[in-house]
Amino acid sequence: MSAYDRLRPLLEPRVVAVVGVSRQGKQGAVFLQGLLDPGFRGEVYVVNPGATEIMGVPSYPSVSALPKRPDLAILVLPAEPAIAVVRECAELGVPGVAMFTAGFNELGTSEGEERARRLIQASAGRVRIIGPNCMGAYNPRVGIAMFGGMPALPGPVGLISQSGSLVQFIVTALAERGLGFSKAVSIGNQLDLTAADFLEAFAEDPETGVIAAYLEGVPDARRFAGVLRTVAACKPVILWKAGRAAAGARAARSHTGQLAGEFRIWQGLARQAGAVLVRDIEELTDTVVAAAALGGAPASGRQVAIVTGPGGPAVSASDACEEAGLALAELAPSTQEALRRVVAAAGTSVRNPVDVGMVLQGATAVYGEALRIALADSSVDAALVIGGDRSDPAAFAEMLIDARQRSGKPVLYAVGGRFFGGEEHLRRLAEGGVATAPTAERALRAYARLVAARAS
Amino acid sequence: MSAYDRLRPLLEPRVVAVVGVSRQGKQGAVFLQGLLDPGFRGEVYVVNPGATEIMGVPSYPSVSALPKRPDLAILVLPAEPAIAVVRECAELGVPGVAMFTAGFNELGTSEGEERARRLIQASAGRVRIIGPNCMGAYNPRVGIAMFGGMPALPGPVGLISQSGSLVQFIVTALAERGLGFSKAVSIGNQLDLTAADFLEAFAEDPETGVIAAYLEGVPDARRFAGVLRTVAACKPVILWKAGRAAAGARAARSHTGQLAGEFRIWQGLARQAGAVLVRDIEELTDTVVAAAALGGAPASGRQVAIVTGPGGPAVSASDACEEAGLALAELAPSTQEALRRVVAAAGTSVRNPVDVGMVLQGATAVYGEALRIALADSSVDAALVIGGDRSDPAAFAEMLIDARQRSGKPVLYAVGGRFFGGEEHLRRLAEGGVATAPTAERALRAYARLVAARAS
Repeated sequence: MSAYDRLRPLLEPRVVAVVGVSRQGKQGAVFLQGLLDPGFRGEVYVVNPGATEIMGVPSYPSVSALPKRPDLAILVLPAEPAIAVVRECAELGVPGVAMFTAGFNELGTSEGEERARRLIQASAGRVRIIGPNCMGAYNPRVGIAMFGGMPALPGPVGLISQSGSLVQFIVTALAERGLGFSKAVSIGNQLDLTAADFLEAFAEDPETGVIAAYLEGVPDARRFAGVLRTVAACKPVILWKAGRAAAGARAARSHTGQLAGEFRIWQGLARQAGAVLVRDIEELTDTVVAAAALGGAPASGRQVAIVTGPGGPAVSASDACEEAGLALAELAPSTQEALRRVVAAAGTSVRNPVDVGMVLQGATAVYGEALRIALADSSVDAALVIGGDRSDPAAFAEMLIDARQRSGKPVLYAVGGRFFGGEEHLRRLAEGGVATAPTAERALRAYARLVAARAS
Repeated sequence: MSAYDRLRPLLEPRVVAVVGVSRQGKQGAVFLQGLLDPGFRGEVYVVNPGATEIMGVPSYPSVSALPKRPDLAILVLPAEPAIAVVRECAELGVPGVAMFTAGFNELGTSEGEERARRLIQASAGRVRIIGPNCMGAYNPRVGIAMFGGMPALPGPVGLISQSGSLVQFIVTALAERGLGFSKAVSIGNQLDLTAADFLEAFAEDPETGVIAAYLEGVPDARRFAGVLRTVAACKPVILWKAGRAAAGARAARSHTGQLAGEFRIWQGLARQAGAVLVRDIEELTDTVVAAAALGGAPASGRQVAIVTGPGGPAVSASDACEEAGLALAELAPSTQEALRRVVAAAGTSVRNPVDVGMVLQGATAVYGEALRIALADSSVDAALVIGGDRSDPAAFAEMLIDARQRSGKPVLYAVGGRFFGGEEHLRRLAEGGVATAPTAERALRAYARLVAARAS
């Protein structure tokens, strides 16, 4: 049985029970809403001995009383009753539980540690545990979420996160960037299933093209290191490691009970594995967007051509290029000659950055020609485009996609916030393999991270 | 006459002539649209010998033929005719011209240099020149813009930029952040009026509270250094210096004919003056938003209290705190005691970061109490709030503003993209003196830049 198949019931459950939703639907309601809102494709039950129905969902007194054995039980009970339900699930052969329940090793007390031991004992190696102290699984294709109102866009990103709210923030941020998810999992304290388990599973999952992770620490460092090396060799892995500084490490300790470990060990680990290390949500989303878009045109070369209309942003992008470890490609005389036939005589430049000037009409055609010529230069590994055509962003997007597909080289596009088009525009560009970012600097830094990871 | 009064006709013109708009309104139309769109409060004329009216605006054959002497003439002519019009303006006593016209020293040829000399000669020290190779002035209060469709929100930001498109991008980005402009000026090649001139003027302008600048270089380095020191002593100055790296310096040369200068000289200059140096548009806008919001509660201390609901973002914020040169304040036992009475017993923390947990109802009240208690701790210099109340962002905003006003201490708020409210929400927070940023990390880095500048 493959690593993914073992976790399939937890990530693509057909029958889900939410255990411990209060009758007024206050405690645990978010999880039920997370199944109702996206229209869960399977069957949902509630376990509450005092109700027959909660929020329109049939309720039963216990897990064993359910008409079907659940694939996944979501536990929103206090710690001690939750341990009892885990024991019941183990006896019934329930494959997995996701435990919102907190009060274990993250307390930093001997009582918490002891409770953690009893929890693992109760699972008897039969029922696998996501968490505890987590928000469980998100899978837009089967319709399972952690909160009501989460974006429901399927896509290539697989996310592993020790923070449930960061799953929410990252899924929302990437939806705004036009990118959806295969599945995401909030793993909390990692008492049973760890980041390494989900890394292995996502590596085998054909729906997952890019793997992102927010980690504060790992309980199985040696195994994690080995798995990371194997997985990063076949799919891009973007790691946001928190708890780098002393203050963060202390915060991580009380958040998920995690020992953060020396950050330079993580840096070595990532470098050896060819994984990308990032330090905040924007670096994470930028790099994930670039990795997803450039799948078919890997980031392997440092020589960048900039094709721009706006002057200032291109100067700053030139700085960012060099500061990120990339370089401005030197365009061949024949390339410059060809560009001279395309751009206007005044207020333009045929050297890199290629400046098409202020084009009042037909900007897409001029940009398109300039971009095609620049990409055809053998010294150019990738192109960054700045500017656009506000009168027809869709045509501009198709031009970029066409240039990317024909050349087979990475094309980055600095969209300038919401200036040149909204989410639909970004979605089309993501599908078409163009790596977008709000600014030229962020596009270049994300690309540079991918290049550095491949070079290592 | 004060520095501002000398430039008043250029920044608050009552009569404007756009010279060289073509009859079909193609060449130069953007500038005319930039007066028509925001409903310019003064009189507009066009100069074109072949027309009597263009885009509904009366046209005259020459500047001297205009019914009124303009305060500002915007020149969209080629270089040689433009020089002739500058001579005419000097003779007529027109106070200022803004020259879109390119083809001067930015060409990097002796012909360009010679033309630049003739242009200055033609101005005869009588008419002041913005540019050439620039987009001129933006003033939302009087209704003058550089393009049609620019945001028209007045506010405290004064911007000096060697890039016209960056004025557009920065004005749009800050409008999305809830912040408006007193005036902005695109200064191009700085052949006559330089960044130092506008710095001096903005320092005296009561409408300008925060000064931002995008600069590739300055032609009058000694004077600029002195002016920067004087101005930064009275108003926050945020400097985006481009042309830091060799590639950027080359690009700057052909963009505005500027010698970029050694970046470490700029670093020394900024440090001595107490100005903030930034390296991209996001750092610029974050720092400007923070400086504008915190005007009355200056960024002077490094001890930060974090008040959060989401766990992961607070761990990452703790890292960012330390990495940016700030620190997590150690809360007094009495503060922790008071917090314990406010937050729930489980899944929370009364140490810094203060974690209010997942509050399903009444989040604003719980956050408000926790924030008030944290700010009252004498070891806390500033507070960062993460999370919010999606059910009532407006009430949450008022709570933050109230805490900021009562405590007199800086309050930063990580809004999580568009997650917890839109532009109106951000505008209210900006007015109320709360420094917002899309992420906790960006809020902390912006605050840290202001603290470091004050400490220098």
